[in-house]
Amino acid sequence: MRRSIATVCLSGTLEEKLEAASAAGFDGIELFEADLVNAPLAPAEVRALAGELGLTIDLYQPFRDFEAVPEPDFRRAEAKFDLMEALGAPTMLVCSNVRADAIDDDALAAEHLHALATRAHERGLKIAYEALAWGHHVSTYDHAWRIVEQADHPALGTCLDSFHILSRGTSLDALDRIPGEKILFLQLADAPHLTMDVLQWSRHYRCFPGQGALDVAGLLRRVLATGYDGPLSLEVFNDVFRQADARRTAIDAMRSLIVLEGTPLPPPAPLHGFAFVEIAVDSPEVEDLLRAMGFAHVGPHRSKPVQLWEHGDIRVVLNHGGDAAEVVAIAVQSEDPAASAERAHALLAPPLERRRGSGEADLEAVAAPDGTAVFFCGTDWLGDFLPTGEAAAEGVPIERIDHITLAQPFDAFDEAGLFYRSVLDLRPSEATELAAPDGLVRSRAYARGEVRVVLNVPALANQDRAELQHVAFATGDALAAARALRARGVPLLGVPDNYYDDLEARLEDLDTAPLRELGVLYDRTPEGELLHFYTAPIGGRVFFEVLERRGGYRGYGALNSPVRMAAQRRGERHAEGAGA
Amino acid sequence: MRRSIATVCLSGTLEEKLEAASAAGFDGIELFEADLVNAPLAPAEVRALAGELGLTIDLYQPFRDFEAVPEPDFRRAEAKFDLMEALGAPTMLVCSNVRADAIDDDALAAEHLHALATRAHERGLKIAYEALAWGHHVSTYDHAWRIVEQADHPALGTCLDSFHILSRGTSLDALDRIPGEKILFLQLADAPHLTMDVLQWSRHYRCFPGQGALDVAGLLRRVLATGYDGPLSLEVFNDVFRQADARRTAIDAMRSLIVLEGTPLPPPAPLHGFAFVEIAVDSPEVEDLLRAMGFAHVGPHRSKPVQLWEHGDIRVVLNHGGDAAEVVAIAVQSEDPAASAERAHALLAPPLERRRGSGEADLEAVAAPDGTAVFFCGTDWLGDFLPTGEAAAEGVPIERIDHITLAQPFDAFDEAGLFYRSVLDLRPSEATELAAPDGLVRSRAYARGEVRVVLNVPALANQDRAELQHVAFATGDALAAARALRARGVPLLGVPDNYYDDLEARLEDLDTAPLRELGVLYDRTPEGELLHFYTAPIGGRVFFEVLERRGGYRGYGALNSPVRMAAQRRGERHAEGAGA
Repeated sequence: MRRSIATVCLSGTLEEKLEAASAAGFDGIELFEADLVNAPLAPAEVRALAGELGLTIDLYQPFRDFEAVPEPDFRRAEAKFDLMEALGAPTMLVCSNVRADAIDDDALAAEHLHALATRAHERGLKIAYEALAWGHHVSTYDHAWRIVEQADHPALGTCLDSFHILSRGTSLDALDRIPGEKILFLQLADAPHLTMDVLQWSRHYRCFPGQGALDVAGLLRRVLATGYDGPLSLEVFNDVFRQADARRTAIDAMRSLIVLEGTPLPPPAPLHGFAFVEIAVDSPEVEDLLRAMGFAHVGPHRSKPVQLWEHGDIRVVLNHGGDAAEVVAIAVQSEDPAASAERAHALLAPPLERRRGSGEADLEAVAAPDGTAVFFCGTDWLGDFLPTGEAAAEGVPIERIDHITLAQPFDAFDEAGLFYRSVLDLRPSEATELAAPDGLVRSRAYARGEVRVVLNVPALANQDRAELQHVAFATGDALAAARALRARGVPLLGVPDNYYDDLEARLEDLDTAPLRELGVLYDRTPEGELLHFYTAPIGGRVFFEVLERRGGYRGYGALNSPVRMAAQRRGERHAEGAGA
Repeated sequence: MRRSIATVCLSGTLEEKLEAASAAGFDGIELFEADLVNAPLAPAEVRALAGELGLTIDLYQPFRDFEAVPEPDFRRAEAKFDLMEALGAPTMLVCSNVRADAIDDDALAAEHLHALATRAHERGLKIAYEALAWGHHVSTYDHAWRIVEQADHPALGTCLDSFHILSRGTSLDALDRIPGEKILFLQLADAPHLTMDVLQWSRHYRCFPGQGALDVAGLLRRVLATGYDGPLSLEVFNDVFRQADARRTAIDAMRSLIVLEGTPLPPPAPLHGFAFVEIAVDSPEVEDLLRAMGFAHVGPHRSKPVQLWEHGDIRVVLNHGGDAAEVVAIAVQSEDPAASAERAHALLAPPLERRRGSGEADLEAVAAPDGTAVFFCGTDWLGDFLPTGEAAAEGVPIERIDHITLAQPFDAFDEAGLFYRSVLDLRPSEATELAAPDGLVRSRAYARGEVRVVLNVPALANQDRAELQHVAFATGDALAAARALRARGVPLLGVPDNYYDDLEARLEDLDTAPLRELGVLYDRTPEGELLHFYTAPIGGRVFFEVLERRGGYRGYGALNSPVRMAAQRRGERHAEGAGA
């Protein structure tokens, strides 16, 4: 089916919007009136530019407050019809009247729309009538359809909008009574569940399908069952997208449509945890920490300035090309790396070019929205490292990478989430909010089997915020691990006594003494328990966590994140003080 | 009365919060439990630190989900009482139970609270019971009071919270039945009118009294009438304050209390418009533009590298010490500059030190939250400039400064608003949202007589945004002014033909030809009309507007801001392209 996007979804000037839509592979656009009004291009020039970019102008929108008033403004409509002819836009969106003086009279609305459609028809144009969820008298799609049916004009049909329908929880059953050819346009948007005024919800918090909580896929199936074969068009008002890079947003939008449509994709290959995590470093600090944690430097790369460090099934690649310590790549162990990469490419993940020496493994990689490289590994890549013969220390019970927490820019919450859900086929958990000392952080985990990625995103942008990333190592015995690491002199993050006092007050049956002694944090859910602790942050942005999941504990210790964040903030201040 | 602030209002570590509260002059704090739990200081150390800073710990909060359950957790309560003794905190806040399994039984709740108060009493502590607006069974203050009354214990009283009361629109009449001594604590918070889930509204959008739409002052009067003489304490959960500088937030909070209490302040002196606006410049561009607009350089300053430019009643001071063109100071013409400055100081506006030469005017100035200097001028300051004898050009009908629009950091919307409202006694207009090509902008005007300041704030932080400021000059004839400026070669911002096509479609009776010819924008309200136009932006951040208000037009042409912003964005891109 044809794919379209409303210009209001994208930031920038009209030209930038069109270029972004074209670059992401859209077939057409809905032209939002203000984007034309604010542009210096004549309508014919807009048409020509769109044509050059391979885009059709599928809809001119919105035409407001026309029907069911004492004197409908045909003059204004004809002026817009002139525009549409110059634009080559076949269909005008008329949305239900929101004026306080609109008359509650379906017959009158139908009469006015019939007259409007008659005028449109003379020019070869069509009118698509849509119910706004906050329309004064007409606020449901089935009501709008009854008026269209009553008006009964070949140039008049309805426009359906998933947000307006699903936000009100209207039954979808009336869709079955609308002939597909009378649905002139389908607008698609998702939204998170928010209990708020529907107009504000619509204007600020819509998102692309799959990023929210509405059953857009279910609605699409019902609409396609009517025989509708017009464009699938995204119309998303979102404060973040309005200011994000238009090209990135357009790709995010297209990825969402690809998933929504159920476009055939290479199936997600089975994954077996993380093959490795790559950390850029600019000093020996991370190396020293890994050594202290019992890791072995098992090999330098044949041709690149990177080193492989190992402990149990944990592999950390250190890349000596950074200018601060940060996670620059995550690698999943795939049963079929080529298929994983093909799926990623089909989902518009930008491929990363890799230089490789002769005889070296051809590692496929793509870039996540924040620039982190995502590698798809088999097992042959280990041969790229020359053996040093070093072995990991005994007696430190850490076993594998449990999860990797990536700090994202504040405007990447939805985009990065959809990337990991679709490209790696990870499943999201509920989003949580963490009260950090320098602002709220939204956190959401995405997981499949042993591949778990946690995205931490400031609720609001904060230029002063130190964005920390971390790699969490699984252990079968957190207390033993903490004891071993302390004995080896690993600097661990301090936990206040007040934390343990509160834990004791809350949980009568818990023996907090060993936790307190070792600085181990604790959480409990009906499914199980979590014991975990952290190293002090090193070299700027990175630290490590060690965690033990007992029973069926599935979370990430979000309850304890504020105590960690406060301690890190103190450490940072302390370090600043020391440096001064 | 004593002034207190909840630690949750402020960003940072507990130590930073206490220091900020002390620096702003608070007498006490409410200690939010998480702030203690996350701190490495022992309770006695917190007490000592607070004491050193001149702060008492007035409340320990919150103690949740205690009453009206099958087995109230006295053990947890006793652990917190231990803490409170060490902290020297006399009162614990118990908020109404939100658990799904809480029992709807006032007698049981009263029984549990009585037992809790009995235990508290043994230690010389008190319990303040508060209704959360989203409490499971107890959600209104009068219901909480009935339970307290029923429990009838000398160590038990109620805590009132203006948000919980006013957000639900509960009648205040029941306040008259609560004896003042049974109100153990008063928490004050404002909030904007939002139609949304009250829990989310409360947790994210509270603001300081005077920054929102709730009648906090009315509630305070009613509470004081009961005889309450405990602290006035701010408890504000706000996503922006959580990440803003704690010292700035604490001052903002104190300013809000000073205004709310009706603390006697030097009355606002009558103002007679703007004495001048000061623009820092780093190139001759602004000078050239002023010259082209008909301004005269009437004098260099006796001792500073600044020049005075004049046209009609407009005075622009150019400061050659900048590294980009930007508005660095606004000056109001006050009938009593000393009184204006005293009022500002009483409202905690930081005074700016001015160097001045012998015989020069002593200009009082304070810093606005974004660093802009605000001067209070009489008339003697003009003598500080040596006369050049230049005169403004004839035939350019611009007369005085109508308003000054300041771009603020995204986190300064409420703080800067309160500053201008209180310090200059300006009255706010409704906030509007402007769809700029790189994101939504919130805009709000503050005015008294001829002093009008418009604050433009990005809805979300955007590091890429070019923040533009402008000075708007009033004219009695915008068309004549545009014609004159064009003739003089002033570069004006281009307005798309599409804008005029849309204007014609909307307003049948309007002759758009002269507007279109001259690039003049138009707006109409029931009160009057606006004709206005803009110069192209110069030297980075500044441009000028010329506007004609016809009839009683009181707005600022917000409807036309998006077309201006789109044109500016294009200009910027164009300039970048030209430079490349």
